[in-house]
Amino acid sequence: MKDLRAELAARRAAGLYRHRRTVDGPQAPRMVIDGREVLSFCSNDYLGLAGHPVVVAAFRQGADSYGVGSGAAHLVNGHSRAHHALEAELAAFTGRERALLFSTGYMANLGVAAALVGRGDAVFEDRLNHASLLDAGLLSGARFIRYPHNDAAALAGKLSERETGEKLVLTDGVFSMDGDLAPVADLAQACRRHDAWFMVDDAHGLGVLGEHGRGTLEAAGLGPIDVPILMGTLGKGLGTAGAFVAGAEDLIEYLIQTARTYIYTTAQPPAVAEATRAALKLVDAEPWRRDKLQGLVTRFRTGAAQLGLTLMDSPTPIQPLLVGDNQTALAMSEALWDRGILVTAIRPPTVPAGTARLRVTLSAAHDERDVDQLLTALDSISCDTNNV
Amino acid sequence: MKDLRAELAARRAAGLYRHRRTVDGPQAPRMVIDGREVLSFCSNDYLGLAGHPVVVAAFRQGADSYGVGSGAAHLVNGHSRAHHALEAELAAFTGRERALLFSTGYMANLGVAAALVGRGDAVFEDRLNHASLLDAGLLSGARFIRYPHNDAAALAGKLSERETGEKLVLTDGVFSMDGDLAPVADLAQACRRHDAWFMVDDAHGLGVLGEHGRGTLEAAGLGPIDVPILMGTLGKGLGTAGAFVAGAEDLIEYLIQTARTYIYTTAQPPAVAEATRAALKLVDAEPWRRDKLQGLVTRFRTGAAQLGLTLMDSPTPIQPLLVGDNQTALAMSEALWDRGILVTAIRPPTVPAGTARLRVTLSAAHDERDVDQLLTALDSISCDTNNV
Repeated sequence: MKDLRAELAARRAAGLYRHRRTVDGPQAPRMVIDGREVLSFCSNDYLGLAGHPVVVAAFRQGADSYGVGSGAAHLVNGHSRAHHALEAELAAFTGRERALLFSTGYMANLGVAAALVGRGDAVFEDRLNHASLLDAGLLSGARFIRYPHNDAAALAGKLSERETGEKLVLTDGVFSMDGDLAPVADLAQACRRHDAWFMVDDAHGLGVLGEHGRGTLEAAGLGPIDVPILMGTLGKGLGTAGAFVAGAEDLIEYLIQTARTYIYTTAQPPAVAEATRAALKLVDAEPWRRDKLQGLVTRFRTGAAQLGLTLMDSPTPIQPLLVGDNQTALAMSEALWDRGILVTAIRPPTVPAGTARLRVTLSAAHDERDVDQLLTALDSISCDTNNV
Repeated sequence: MKDLRAELAARRAAGLYRHRRTVDGPQAPRMVIDGREVLSFCSNDYLGLAGHPVVVAAFRQGADSYGVGSGAAHLVNGHSRAHHALEAELAAFTGRERALLFSTGYMANLGVAAALVGRGDAVFEDRLNHASLLDAGLLSGARFIRYPHNDAAALAGKLSERETGEKLVLTDGVFSMDGDLAPVADLAQACRRHDAWFMVDDAHGLGVLGEHGRGTLEAAGLGPIDVPILMGTLGKGLGTAGAFVAGAEDLIEYLIQTARTYIYTTAQPPAVAEATRAALKLVDAEPWRRDKLQGLVTRFRTGAAQLGLTLMDSPTPIQPLLVGDNQTALAMSEALWDRGILVTAIRPPTVPAGTARLRVTLSAAHDERDVDQLLTALDSISCDTNNV
């Protein structure tokens, strides 16, 4: 059997070892992590809803009404009125006929791909797609075809080469380690022209992008005809947990009947659904969160450019600083930690080799002073690390 | 593109259509489902902990301490002190060096298999393994080899034929649609002899089987040497949600570094971990729940045998009644529903064709009167359905 100890040692030597830090208290810009208070730029709680008192109150109320565990799969007797109401509200929120809850975005992606394509079919994936989309394509058993990052013309070419079988195109809306947006309008056009299913995983856009927080598709002015399958996660902009797929009545009903990761798993606690329902209302009721967040993104980018830092081309709250070398990225992350700031170093295989980076994420819960403190620290460590 | 409407119609015609019922209120023997109060025998809340006031209180307290969403993956900043404490307690509970939380059992299985085996390796699966174990084997990319249900000798033969590469054997501890136990001692011996990793998915045994509720392995008198990888879920016997893998220090550390379904997903809400910690204590503090449950299982089996019903060979709270035909199973489930009792009809592809069944699950929250009411109703409908 594999010598796990030796493999772990090799990973350490390559600067690829990952350490967990332990967080105390709710998500917030200033958190107690590994026993000390730090300013964190790591959370995907983009709107600051994970600890919002209204969301917490709905969660507590949900536990009073439903207990904790759902007790069974949705198709057995785990489908509560809370789940049902949330599905209807997510359908309305995304402007689609229906929505279906999954336990995680990973499971939603796996479930959709295997339900729609299999042997004899083909799945097309952006090279930088999230691990869950790549695994979804692999598990489906369809021919696995990658296209260059955000290259709709290359996708169209590859689609035109497939003459038989179903075709399914999968892309992130916002790429989680780069922060850039998929060219969804061009991708949608290629899919329509070549009779392919098109699915967008908007994990990092939902709640955040578009005037009303409907995400990447709202920002691009696209609807259900352009993108028939929308996946969204609930543990990022919405501050809770889980995921959903939204689409036409027949699609959702077909997923209920056939998506293995929907059928063969316990439904999430109904209280989580109640919390998400409260968070959805806040996305509408508090548009200032998106405005504030966009202001912080602009402030950070302007400041970082003035410092001569290598920003990636991102209009979203995901603002990675490209470093390159694994050990340097780690050293910078540690230097920030010494200054009381948490920014994670992202290394291969999460990102391509030679593109290690510091992944800064901003939240509406941050304020301008937080951004300025980060910029000051980055300036001071970039002097230090240049001198090393 | 696939005509989903036509596929749905074909499914309806074959008696394979699945309908969701909507539950109100916490898991309990008597629940309001689709607007009427029924006696339910569908839940996997075997110990009656999902709505236990102590578990609910811990969940609420968790929300006060941590908010709702964890905000990020465990390796970014989603790993809370609640998760950390639960991992330590699960390790102690299962008598292993460490434990690692996953969002669902599905994701735990996918993550472990792909971390340990890949191309050039082989994965061995019981023919009746849960969908998540089968998908885990497929996604890993290893050669996929099935063995006849619970046949350790056949497994040993197949293991001996593989001379190169890693070998991983996956089995359910309790088979979820049959209720029978895997012959874990014999399987473990075959794995040791042939240098194979051995993993048991004890979703339906944990909390329920063994004198102290440690599950299938305790009942069989096996430890970490026999079964180095133990997966358990938290949404069944423990009444909450999520899952974990327990094993040796190196194994767990290796999973943290490499298991994609661990690394690339948002951590579950810390409040769920707090609820599970409370449930674990109840498993120890209230052994009467297991005793009561075992008494109900015996009462049901004795009564069903007296009625001449076809019971499957199960010593667990999963007590399926074999029916055979899909439409008959559905008709019996509907006849029970008309008598105020919910028992789900389980049909292909969840079970092999021709083995549709009524899956009765018992819980420590049921009492003898509930079991008797079910037996009376089964007697009355078996007369009716024989006359149809």
